[in-house]
Amino acid sequence: MKHKVVVIGASGTLGKALTNALVEGGHEVVRVSRSAGDYRADIQHKQSLDILFKAIGPFDAVANAAGDVVAGPLEQLTDENYAFALGNKLMGQINVVRAALPYIADKGSFALVSGVLTDEPILGGTLGTVVNGGVEGFVKAAAHELPRGIRINCISPTVLTESVAYHPYFPGFIPVDGWKVAKAYERALFGVINGRIIRV
Amino acid sequence: MKHKVVVIGASGTLGKALTNALVEGGHEVVRVSRSAGDYRADIQHKQSLDILFKAIGPFDAVANAAGDVVAGPLEQLTDENYAFALGNKLMGQINVVRAALPYIADKGSFALVSGVLTDEPILGGTLGTVVNGGVEGFVKAAAHELPRGIRINCISPTVLTESVAYHPYFPGFIPVDGWKVAKAYERALFGVINGRIIRV
Repeated sequence: MKHKVVVIGASGTLGKALTNALVEGGHEVVRVSRSAGDYRADIQHKQSLDILFKAIGPFDAVANAAGDVVAGPLEQLTDENYAFALGNKLMGQINVVRAALPYIADKGSFALVSGVLTDEPILGGTLGTVVNGGVEGFVKAAAHELPRGIRINCISPTVLTESVAYHPYFPGFIPVDGWKVAKAYERALFGVINGRIIRV
Repeated sequence: MKHKVVVIGASGTLGKALTNALVEGGHEVVRVSRSAGDYRADIQHKQSLDILFKAIGPFDAVANAAGDVVAGPLEQLTDENYAFALGNKLMGQINVVRAALPYIADKGSFALVSGVLTDEPILGGTLGTVVNGGVEGFVKAAAHELPRGIRINCISPTVLTESVAYHPYFPGFIPVDGWKVAKAYERALFGVINGRIIRV
């Protein structure tokens, strides 16, 4: 069965791999990004999400591959660093769900993104671990309250093979290829699971 | 060995049980609350925390038993509800650590609080699950970066026996007595563990 899937963060490393996989699978992909794609939106600006989903109209699923945090030593993190991370990768993703909910199809599906830092801290990664914990919490709770048979899951990848610049910060972590993470999104989007954190 | 422990939220149900246990154990307790105790402070106002710890001076440990969220159906949660919960139980507790860090003793200890909702969602409890996930994330990550041998742990209690008004929202959950949760704080504060989530 073919679906119309909105991919947010479509021009990023993960978003590209996901978009390729979905197109290869014959799905209709709506590419959303801050600076390219079919539509422009920034998850940290809720209003841009409200405008986005109204413009796109009906769709079957939303796959989010966007979300930034700030890396830095614990003692040097500022109020602004915390506010940015919470506003971007955490509230940004929650707001994707809130803004898309009026437009997504019955039995539609959301896939958000957390990451390996949830349970495996790295030096300078406090904000990643904080925010991922919140995102996974939202998915675990919202799964039981979304209406109309709509599902939600969370993809938690380790560092990507393609993200070579990040590898030094993940000593001993075995990177995962983007295409494998895309498979996890497909499992979440088109399967039956709900409220799950898929670690890949 | 006796310690000087700052208890935040000392006039709440959990804070009272904790304060009693610490006093019985012969520790010096500095009671902090929004409206009573030795000092007044509100964890959602970072400036009040900066003033607080400067006023208290040196101490060995901080036990936080404060932190509010908003309960409500997922689809009715507002921007304000999210901002309140993130600013209070999540950033409030993170700011307790940030504000206390210059004053806490070498090998000092922090104990924060999350709760059973982290992994066991209840109807209307999305914000609790989101915020607890973030708090536990902070503890898991910060444990590796705190200086001077300072430790941090998180107490995750189920609904308290004493909090009778909350029992209907936790069907089938076996409540825990406040004194048992206080024991978990003591284990965290005076033991050797670090970065642990103690579920009680």
